[in-house]
Amino acid sequence: MDDRPMMRALRGETLPVPPVWMMRQAGRYLPEYRAVRARARTFLDLCYTPELAAEVTLQPIRRFGFDAAILFADILLVPHALGANLVFVEGEGPRLSTVTTPDDLARLAPADAVHATLAPVYETVRQVRAALPAEVPLIGFAGAPWTVATYMIAGRGTPDQAPARLLAYRDPETFDALIERIIAATTGYLLAQVAAGAEIVKLFDSWAGALPGPLFHRYAVEPARRIAQAVRAAYPEVPVIGFPRGAGAGYASFAAAAGVQALALDTSVDAAWAAHELQPRLCVQGNLDPLLLVAGGPALDRATRATVAAFAGGPHVFNLGHGITPEADPANVERMLRAIRGAQG
Amino acid sequence: MDDRPMMRALRGETLPVPPVWMMRQAGRYLPEYRAVRARARTFLDLCYTPELAAEVTLQPIRRFGFDAAILFADILLVPHALGANLVFVEGEGPRLSTVTTPDDLARLAPADAVHATLAPVYETVRQVRAALPAEVPLIGFAGAPWTVATYMIAGRGTPDQAPARLLAYRDPETFDALIERIIAATTGYLLAQVAAGAEIVKLFDSWAGALPGPLFHRYAVEPARRIAQAVRAAYPEVPVIGFPRGAGAGYASFAAAAGVQALALDTSVDAAWAAHELQPRLCVQGNLDPLLLVAGGPALDRATRATVAAFAGGPHVFNLGHGITPEADPANVERMLRAIRGAQG
Repeated sequence: MDDRPMMRALRGETLPVPPVWMMRQAGRYLPEYRAVRARARTFLDLCYTPELAAEVTLQPIRRFGFDAAILFADILLVPHALGANLVFVEGEGPRLSTVTTPDDLARLAPADAVHATLAPVYETVRQVRAALPAEVPLIGFAGAPWTVATYMIAGRGTPDQAPARLLAYRDPETFDALIERIIAATTGYLLAQVAAGAEIVKLFDSWAGALPGPLFHRYAVEPARRIAQAVRAAYPEVPVIGFPRGAGAGYASFAAAAGVQALALDTSVDAAWAAHELQPRLCVQGNLDPLLLVAGGPALDRATRATVAAFAGGPHVFNLGHGITPEADPANVERMLRAIRGAQG
Repeated sequence: MDDRPMMRALRGETLPVPPVWMMRQAGRYLPEYRAVRARARTFLDLCYTPELAAEVTLQPIRRFGFDAAILFADILLVPHALGANLVFVEGEGPRLSTVTTPDDLARLAPADAVHATLAPVYETVRQVRAALPAEVPLIGFAGAPWTVATYMIAGRGTPDQAPARLLAYRDPETFDALIERIIAATTGYLLAQVAAGAEIVKLFDSWAGALPGPLFHRYAVEPARRIAQAVRAAYPEVPVIGFPRGAGAGYASFAAAAGVQALALDTSVDAAWAAHELQPRLCVQGNLDPLLLVAGGPALDRATRATVAAFAGGPHVFNLGHGITPEADPANVERMLRAIRGAQG
């Protein structure tokens, strides 16, 4: 059995000190990340240049000794590989060609044609796995179909994902066909990441909270279940982490039905509720407010210790409730790690 | 006993057909609203001109025969009355002077000084109550302290309410003092609305979902509990509706501890979960996706009937899960009403 702390926690073991990593740990809060970013012309170039993407993946492991690395990439690489035009506009976010009609859909590439575009990502995985200390597992990831669809339909980020919800109401056939295409492409993408060396996969459903109650099962739980099932069928030892961000009480139904081995909790989730409702069933990951890494001080110490204590009775991977922000102070990350590792040992 | 359907549902009665109103029912989707809006120089003028504010409050009652009217006003009138500069920038939203230091706080007016500024709102309530059919109760409202504080601290709407969360971490004394000031002002404001003729009050905590788990009880539940308690102490027959939007599983702890008579459910809440976890304790209100009033068609009929059916076993007020959007078609509102009222009688 793989006895690295991250793998043990994801298998359901309760550990005296939780393993820890951070969403967006390879990011702009690190000066060494900004230096590498400056060597790539665009953000997409950074994602598709294995030497650079591998380097930024490894940086936070070297600096902080986290218990897991996560591939540096972007959830919009899948739509890009399906044929969408994609640019990241500095300070504004992504812009991509939209898919809102059967004709748009017909112009997309088939799901199994994504690998040519995504090959550099698999090469990044290989390089990271080769360079990473053996005791640190590598997490591969993809965006969940609903979240990816919200960008493909709107052509950009939207505050309430209204264009995607409207398409689901007005033209469910086209919407469902798009979701199916993303499910297929994402499954292939994650299987290829694992084949290249990823040892854990995570599915980011960043906008799950925008799904109306009646659509949550169909568009958040079911796609995750099918993708997780495909990964586990091929690689039974690879744990799948689900992250239906903002799902609220829906976290419980997701835990019951999605067939994932761990659930990442967003910042809003009450730890006592999650310890009672979710942890008996699976490993939970989370969920410190990333703004505490901006604020620092005793508030950070207290909240970190409280998070560790709240989840100490079951399997837990310490993480933030959302990605670390560019304004975070790396010294506060050190402080958080001291509070976690000093808290119980 | 007051036997109007809205009052019966809020008292906990299960009715064969739920009473219905819509958040933001006096709004830009109505041509008659836009005509009145054009007569006021600014949005604030509209809020503070009783004849105009009363007229737009009454319009949706005349057109649709809703079971409740809701005062036309804005949640930022309380900060305005506390001394904040406030302007609504067309297409961008509110801009107000910020409160982030003890000095800023010291410059605010005392809570009991808000009534001079807010007197026109009370006059609107009187005029609406005088003009409204006796069978239609009038809902007064205010923003909840956390949500109001997010605007006062940032000086505008923010995607994730980060400035308010940061102040709560960095300077909890100032943050708590601001929350206290808003609690006191809001309590006085709602009591004055009831004295002028409001028969129900609702507290809008639009950004409750941005509260990290460990802060939810302190900054969402407790302020609501204190305000509801003050209203009920003075007016035991006035029901209080809470709306901790985005609270997820926190809806259950809010229901248990806030002492409100009804809970407004946002669009993301699963109806089966709410029927099981919340409705045995209190009346629920909601929660059709407002985008269905843009989409229309059979999707609207199906979702409306499903919402009615899901909550048919307990006290329910039919509503949207969020405010109706300017793009909604008034004909779809008629269609929704037919589906509600035809669904069970």
